[in-house]
Amino acid sequence: MSFEITNIFLNNLTELINSNRDKEISSLFSEVHFADIAEVLEELSFDEAIYIIKLLDSEKTSEILTELDEDIREKILENLSAKEIAEEVGEMDTDDAADIIGELSNERQERVINALEDDDLAADIKELLSYEDDTAGALMAKELVKVYETWTVAGCMRRIRGQAKEVTRVHSIYVVDKDDKLVGRLSLKDLIIAKSDQKIADISKAKVDAVNVNEDDEEVAKIMAKYDLEAIPVVDNNNVLLGRITIDDIVDVLKEEADKDYQMAAGLVQDVEADDSILELTRARLPWLFLGLIGGVGAFIIMEGFHSVFSKYATLFFFTPLIAAMAGNVGVQSSAIIVQGLANDDVKGSINSRLFKEMLLAALNGVILAVFLFLFVWAYKGELNLALAISASLVVVIIIAGLIGTFVPLFLNKRGIDPAIATGPFITTSNDIFGILIYFMIAKLILGI
Amino acid sequence: MSFEITNIFLNNLTELINSNRDKEISSLFSEVHFADIAEVLEELSFDEAIYIIKLLDSEKTSEILTELDEDIREKILENLSAKEIAEEVGEMDTDDAADIIGELSNERQERVINALEDDDLAADIKELLSYEDDTAGALMAKELVKVYETWTVAGCMRRIRGQAKEVTRVHSIYVVDKDDKLVGRLSLKDLIIAKSDQKIADISKAKVDAVNVNEDDEEVAKIMAKYDLEAIPVVDNNNVLLGRITIDDIVDVLKEEADKDYQMAAGLVQDVEADDSILELTRARLPWLFLGLIGGVGAFIIMEGFHSVFSKYATLFFFTPLIAAMAGNVGVQSSAIIVQGLANDDVKGSINSRLFKEMLLAALNGVILAVFLFLFVWAYKGELNLALAISASLVVVIIIAGLIGTFVPLFLNKRGIDPAIATGPFITTSNDIFGILIYFMIAKLILGI
Repeated sequence: MSFEITNIFLNNLTELINSNRDKEISSLFSEVHFADIAEVLEELSFDEAIYIIKLLDSEKTSEILTELDEDIREKILENLSAKEIAEEVGEMDTDDAADIIGELSNERQERVINALEDDDLAADIKELLSYEDDTAGALMAKELVKVYETWTVAGCMRRIRGQAKEVTRVHSIYVVDKDDKLVGRLSLKDLIIAKSDQKIADISKAKVDAVNVNEDDEEVAKIMAKYDLEAIPVVDNNNVLLGRITIDDIVDVLKEEADKDYQMAAGLVQDVEADDSILELTRARLPWLFLGLIGGVGAFIIMEGFHSVFSKYATLFFFTPLIAAMAGNVGVQSSAIIVQGLANDDVKGSINSRLFKEMLLAALNGVILAVFLFLFVWAYKGELNLALAISASLVVVIIIAGLIGTFVPLFLNKRGIDPAIATGPFITTSNDIFGILIYFMIAKLILGI
Repeated sequence: MSFEITNIFLNNLTELINSNRDKEISSLFSEVHFADIAEVLEELSFDEAIYIIKLLDSEKTSEILTELDEDIREKILENLSAKEIAEEVGEMDTDDAADIIGELSNERQERVINALEDDDLAADIKELLSYEDDTAGALMAKELVKVYETWTVAGCMRRIRGQAKEVTRVHSIYVVDKDDKLVGRLSLKDLIIAKSDQKIADISKAKVDAVNVNEDDEEVAKIMAKYDLEAIPVVDNNNVLLGRITIDDIVDVLKEEADKDYQMAAGLVQDVEADDSILELTRARLPWLFLGLIGGVGAFIIMEGFHSVFSKYATLFFFTPLIAAMAGNVGVQSSAIIVQGLANDDVKGSINSRLFKEMLLAALNGVILAVFLFLFVWAYKGELNLALAISASLVVVIIIAGLIGTFVPLFLNKRGIDPAIATGPFITTSNDIFGILIYFMIAKLILGI
C-alpha cells in the first residue's frame, strides 16, 4: 500500500511538467493519497511544486497544503494570491483552515478571510483564530454532527444526512438542549441499532467527556489518551458546544511534544530539522553551546584556583575530565527519569522522599564505580591516599550530581516552569562545575593540602 | 470532567474496605471511568486493590486491568486463579486479552486459555499470541465489522447489527470477497446516506489501506499518523483479512517509542520509571555510567601522556573540561537532530552532503565561540600564542565532534542498527576522548612542544 517515491518517478514527473503535459500529470496523481503527493512536492524544485499546486483542483490541493512541511508551505503561500488561498481554504476543515490562515501575516489574513465566499466559514475561522495558541480552542474544528434532545431517531436520521456530508469522520453525535448546551452523546452505531420512533433523549448517553475551550492542548492529549477517546467536544464556560477535537490532531500534538522534549534535552532552543538552513540551525544550537562555553570557563577558573596543588598531585588534575563526565552523565540520567515521570504523571510522593531515594541510588552506583576506580588508580599509580581521595570524591560527586538532576526539574515543575529545560546542557554544564569544585574540595580535605 | 483522587477520597475508601461495606464501594465507583479506577487502585495498598478487583464485576474489572500499571497488574494476576483470570479475559477485546495473557508465564497461559468458556475466543487469542512482539499481528484485535461485497445495503444493516454490538468502535466496515480477502471498505456514514437497495460493491471504496500482519509496529504507527487513519485492517500475504488495529493502540506505541528514545539519549538501558526499585534503576543506569568511567580513564591516560607539557603550559590543562564539554554538547546536538530526522523520515540526500553541511555548520559555530574564548584567554592571561592555540583547538574539536555526532547515527542506521544508541553517553564519552586527544595534538603543534 505504500507509495514509493523513486528517482525514476521524479525525473518522469519533471519531464511532464517541463512539457506542460497537464492531463498526464493529473492522471498520474489521481489515485495517490494527498499525504504522498505532499511528499513528492517536497522533493521537487519550488517552481515545479507551484506548477502542480496550480494544476490540480483545490479539493485535492487543499488537503496537500495541510500535509506539506511548514517551510515549504510558507513559500508556496507567498506565491498564491489572497483569492487563490481563499479558494483552497474554502475546501478545508475549519481547524486546518484556521491553522493555514494563522501562518500568514496579519494583513494577508484579513485579505484572505475577506476573499472567502462563505460568510459562515469566515466567521468560524475568525472565531478559531481568536483562541490562544496551544489551547483546545486553537486545536478544534467547527465541523460536528449535533442533534437536539427532543428529536426522534427517524427525524434525526433525516436531518443528519446533510450534516454528516460535511463531517469527514462522524465519531460521536452530540446532543444539545435548546440553548445549544451539551447534554449527551450517541454513536452512529447506537443510532443504527435503535428503533425509529425512540426519542434521542432516551437512547443518548448523558455522560459526555468534554474539554473547556481554554484547556492546554497537552492536557487535552493526556485526557484523550487516558480515556481512549477519538474525538472530544469542546465547550465554553457555560457548557455551550463550540467545536470538537479529533484524535489525528492529538497524534500530531503528541509527536510534536516528544520532538520538543527530545530537542530540549539535546540543547536545541527551537524546532529545527536536519534540512533547515545553516543559519537556522546555528540559531538553535549556539545559545546552549555558549552556556557550555561559560561553564567551561568557570571550570577553568576553579582549576586555576587550585594550581598550587598540581606540582604535588598532578594525577588529581588528570582525572578532572572523568569527574566532570560522570557528574554530567548521572545528572542527565536523573533528570530524564524525573522529566519523563512528570510528563506521564508517574511522579507521586513528596520531593523529599524522592531526593532521599535518589541519594541511596546514587550512593549505590557511586560506590560500585568508585571501587573500580580505586583499584585502577592504586594499581596504576601505587598511591593509596591518592586512590582513596579520587574514589571518595567520585562517590560524593555522583551523589550530589544525582540530587541536582532530581531536584532541579521537580523544583521547576513546582514553580510552573517546563522541567524539560533542566535536561541536557543545563544539567551537564552545572554538574560539570559543581563536580569539579566538590572534587577539589574533597581532595584537599583528604590529602590535607 | 476530570476525576480527582484526593487523600480524603482514599482514606474514605480504605475505611469502607476495612468495614466490608461492599454496596457503598460499588456505588462509589459506579459512575467512575475505569481508567480513573485504575489510578485509584495504584494508590491503594496491594490488599485493598485486590479487594476491589474481586468485588467489582468482571465487565468493569477487565477494563481496569488493561489500564493498570504493568508492575501492579503483574502482582494482581499472581493472586488470581486461572479461572478468575479467564473470566476477566472473557470480557476483554481480543487484543487486550492477548496482551494480558501474554504477560503470564507459559504454563499459566495454557491454563488460562483452557479455562476460557468461549472456544472461538480461545482460538483467537492463541492466534494473536503466535505473532512476534512489536508487529502488526501482536497489536491487532480480531473484532471488526465485515460484510460481503454481494450483499445489499438493507441486508447489510440487518446483519451488522449483531456484529456491531461486539465492536467497541466501528470505524470502517470492511468489505471482503467470498474467500475473505479484503476488497474494499465503507463507513457507517456511507451506509446511512445510501439507498437501501444499492449493492455494497457499488457504494464501497475499492481503495483500502491495509498492513501486513508481520509489519513492524512503529511502521504501522507512521502509516496511520501520515494518512490520518483511526483504524487499519491487517491482512496476511494473500490479502485475507485477519484483524484490525485502532488508533488508541497506536497512541500508546507512539508514547512508548518517544519514551524509549528519550531514555536512550539519557543513557538508560531499559525502560524504568521514577517509582521503580533502586535495584531496577541501578540496572538501567549503571552500564552507561560504567562506559563513562572507562572513557574518563582513557582521558586520564591521554593527559598523563602530555604530562611534561604541564609545567610550561598549565593553562592548557585547566581548559580540558571546557574542550571535553564542548565536544560532548556539539556531538549530542548533532546526533539528536539526525536521529530525530531519521525517525521522522526527514533525512534525505547522501551521507557525504550531510557531513559537509555539518562541517560548515560546526565551523561557523566553532569560530564564533572560539573568538569569545580567544578574547577571554588573551585578556585573562595576556599570552597571545596560548590564546590562539586554545581557540584554534576549540574550532577543530567542535568540527570533528559535530562530524562524529552526524556520522555515527547515519552509519548505524545504514547498517540496520537503531541510531538512537549513538545519542547520549555514547557520543559524550567518545567525543570527550577525541576532543581531549585532538586538543593536545593541536596545542602541541601550535606551541611547538
